[in-house]
Amino acid sequence: MSKSNKILSISDLGEFGLIDHLTKDFSISDKQLIKGIGDDAAVFSNGDTCTLVTTDLLVEGIHFNLIYTPLKHLGYKSVVVNLSDIFAMNAIPKYITVSIAVSNKFSVQALEQIYEGIKIACERFDVELIGGDTTSSLSGLFINIMAIGQAKKDEIVYRSGAKKNDLVCVSGDLGASYMGLQLLEREKEVFLADTSIQPELSGYEYIVERQLKPEPRRDILKKLKEAGIQPNAMIDISDGLSSEMLHLCKNSNLGCVIYEEKLPIHQQTILAAEMFRLDPSLPALNGGEDYELLFTVPLSQKEIIDKIHDISIIGYMHENKDYKMFVPRNGVEIELRAQGWNAMRE
Amino acid sequence: MSKSNKILSISDLGEFGLIDHLTKDFSISDKQLIKGIGDDAAVFSNGDTCTLVTTDLLVEGIHFNLIYTPLKHLGYKSVVVNLSDIFAMNAIPKYITVSIAVSNKFSVQALEQIYEGIKIACERFDVELIGGDTTSSLSGLFINIMAIGQAKKDEIVYRSGAKKNDLVCVSGDLGASYMGLQLLEREKEVFLADTSIQPELSGYEYIVERQLKPEPRRDILKKLKEAGIQPNAMIDISDGLSSEMLHLCKNSNLGCVIYEEKLPIHQQTILAAEMFRLDPSLPALNGGEDYELLFTVPLSQKEIIDKIHDISIIGYMHENKDYKMFVPRNGVEIELRAQGWNAMRE
Repeated sequence: MSKSNKILSISDLGEFGLIDHLTKDFSISDKQLIKGIGDDAAVFSNGDTCTLVTTDLLVEGIHFNLIYTPLKHLGYKSVVVNLSDIFAMNAIPKYITVSIAVSNKFSVQALEQIYEGIKIACERFDVELIGGDTTSSLSGLFINIMAIGQAKKDEIVYRSGAKKNDLVCVSGDLGASYMGLQLLEREKEVFLADTSIQPELSGYEYIVERQLKPEPRRDILKKLKEAGIQPNAMIDISDGLSSEMLHLCKNSNLGCVIYEEKLPIHQQTILAAEMFRLDPSLPALNGGEDYELLFTVPLSQKEIIDKIHDISIIGYMHENKDYKMFVPRNGVEIELRAQGWNAMRE
Repeated sequence: MSKSNKILSISDLGEFGLIDHLTKDFSISDKQLIKGIGDDAAVFSNGDTCTLVTTDLLVEGIHFNLIYTPLKHLGYKSVVVNLSDIFAMNAIPKYITVSIAVSNKFSVQALEQIYEGIKIACERFDVELIGGDTTSSLSGLFINIMAIGQAKKDEIVYRSGAKKNDLVCVSGDLGASYMGLQLLEREKEVFLADTSIQPELSGYEYIVERQLKPEPRRDILKKLKEAGIQPNAMIDISDGLSSEMLHLCKNSNLGCVIYEEKLPIHQQTILAAEMFRLDPSLPALNGGEDYELLFTVPLSQKEIIDKIHDISIIGYMHENKDYKMFVPRNGVEIELRAQGWNAMRE
């Protein structure tokens, strides 16, 4: 059997490789289309303003577990992970569509709870539900949400705009959502072994909430705008800092240096990591589902950035595109690698 | 237990009732939004032009069966059913996104076949794939496609625009896709009982193709435009003529009269219906998945419509919104009822 006839499994390629592979033959010739596949959202122009589009599919048993995920939170999270992609383009989300496939064993009341969470997200972020589809599945719950945003053409920030020596900045803290998930998974196992035992999550409320009810960082965009800063490049952190950092490097054709000591990590994340005998930098680098913003700004704006609360400078862009380094506390540089949470890896 | 606490099952409400129920509390306040939920596509304005959005979720075992659905056809059909919704607004589809959830048992080659069909549809209808998501499912294949179209504001045709005495017109023929599905289902049962038996579909190629590879009617829009006709109201027939006709009536606040003898039915549909001991008018009225256009035009345009190939006048809009009648060949009017194919009914 020749190599080209080998039956490839999906996990051979991984999620990003798979999408690249499947879409490589699709040509882009439309003149209004500014950005197709390959950023947080696609962009096309309508005269002065541009429209941005992104979509995410959440699958029961892969992306969420209904044992510990309240349906209202699930509805909320399904929306905001898409809004986060629009914010990551420095754009304003306007509309969403919601497609849900659900087993007939699901009650209408259960669906109502999902829609209640969707509604809260819509109201909080000023977006409107404009369409969708609701249908049966033979088993399991599937939620596909598409978000549409708008921005002026010159205000859109792509993954590709980073310049050499740019400061690499990140909002909030990293790794909390992943550690929250580990806790929830552990308590699920305990519960399944003995359903009379209630989950022990006290002291870890922050990281559990980061997993169940993430908040996209519209507030950071507002602060940056008020400070007169428009990032050169931006991406949201859904698959872990390392993975997203490598996307920024690849798209901007640059390298980077990231310092371990600069990684913002919440105290609860550190405590939970220690409990699971993990180095806290691992979830911060590779945990995923943080929905923080990772962006670059010119070195000249360091003083302004330093004054903005909840933004950390974690490194800089390097002119050599093959030089993508992580500097641990011991100072011995190692290559930055993506070991991000990957939905296709199972 | 009070009535309001009754656990409603999804099948209690049906697909349309369910969507209405779940979205009733969502307010629409955005000034750019012209049409939210409730037509073939949502519409929002961008200055001179409008953007239209529609989405459809196809689920293995509910909307398609992989035993008799070639993957390439499935990819093609998944795209064109969405394009059909855009055409039904008298708009031009421009972009699609594709979200796929698939079990890891699926090979990359199988996904490639789906994308090959998607690509053929994109090329045939001049649309571009601009984004999407690919992820795992624990079982089954799920395809969610979203289509974006464009149109000038005054060229968009809604379900709500029909006027009293308008002629009700339909493109192509009706019921073929449903009868094609019945044939495929029958051959599947035969095959499952004895896998050495090959399917017997000769003489029924047209209706099988209508099921597996429907064609949205861009050509009809072109002909109407060339003839100087812009329909007052339009919808595409995905859930059966009766169901769609009632949508037009409800949205236009009118009744209708539909004549059985005017229903366009293909010879193969009639033969297959007879083989299954069905009145051929039943699949024509309720079969679904025809993806033909159902539209209304002023009575004054009858002569022009009569000259356009592949359009049938099947009735007219009645000024009394409670008068929605079907006139069988025997002349004894009965009320038109929706018994359309309904994905939530199972």
